[in-house]
Amino acid sequence: MGRMDEDAVRRHLERAVELATANVAEGGGPFGAVVVMPDGTIFEGTNRVTRDNDPTAHAEVVAIRRAAAGTRDFDLHGAALYTSCEPCPLCLSAALWARISAVYFAADRHDAAAAGFDDAEFYEYFDGDDRSRMPVARSELAQRTAPFDAWAAFTARVEY
Amino acid sequence: MGRMDEDAVRRHLERAVELATANVAEGGGPFGAVVVMPDGTIFEGTNRVTRDNDPTAHAEVVAIRRAAAGTRDFDLHGAALYTSCEPCPLCLSAALWARISAVYFAADRHDAAAAGFDDAEFYEYFDGDDRSRMPVARSELAQRTAPFDAWAAFTARVEY
Repeated sequence: MGRMDEDAVRRHLERAVELATANVAEGGGPFGAVVVMPDGTIFEGTNRVTRDNDPTAHAEVVAIRRAAAGTRDFDLHGAALYTSCEPCPLCLSAALWARISAVYFAADRHDAAAAGFDDAEFYEYFDGDDRSRMPVARSELAQRTAPFDAWAAFTARVEY
Repeated sequence: MGRMDEDAVRRHLERAVELATANVAEGGGPFGAVVVMPDGTIFEGTNRVTRDNDPTAHAEVVAIRRAAAGTRDFDLHGAALYTSCEPCPLCLSAALWARISAVYFAADRHDAAAAGFDDAEFYEYFDGDDRSRMPVARSELAQRTAPFDAWAAFTARVEY
């Protein structure tokens, strides 16, 4: 990274941390994020899980959803995600599906754990083979590929 | 599982597959899901990624968000998630964060890949060490724990 890039990363991360801090007094969790589009447009997000009763409303997810809605494009290729804290698997997955090109974070998972936000068991769920916390089972169903057959037959489909 | 449980699982999966199939003609992806609360209340979701320009609007995420909003509780402990297709890491993470107790699916990742929906590279991202597809970098920031300090000092916080 060049000096200008480093300055930009720092500036966006500072903003994410600022959003995270301000969000606490607003009744949300201590997390903030910004998505910066290739043209410089910025979309901000804060954690709204408890406030909106939405377990998926992590700051990163909120910023990604706003960026996609704001640009009217579910593909955010070329955009960067800056977040106040190391993204959990939900946020990494959201970023992957949104085709985000790079992710930068400030606090790490250890800082978060020290504050009582421990994602370790979530990482373990993906890293290990122990799914006892939430069993996932396939059940045999004759018509299981019917949706895909309908999809193949639907000529007006929008592929993604 | 007893016979009645098996029948219930089949019935909910059939509904998820039905939603998935119907969603194609409605301009969405071929995926459907239902969340069944412990009291039997049902919340449905379909894939709305392209329709809503929301890369996180997978059927499972939509059903989970509706269940949490509908019950006004971000914690869906005791609820089960039934989905037409094996959940990707985004949906598994959303289910974990929502404290979903069990997940059932009909089609698997191979059925999906055959239809052009290949999550394999996403699984590889989490299973492997190769993050070149989307680099994630920590950047040193002096005030990185400021949000957590604010959180610790905020007595009215809602823990989760």
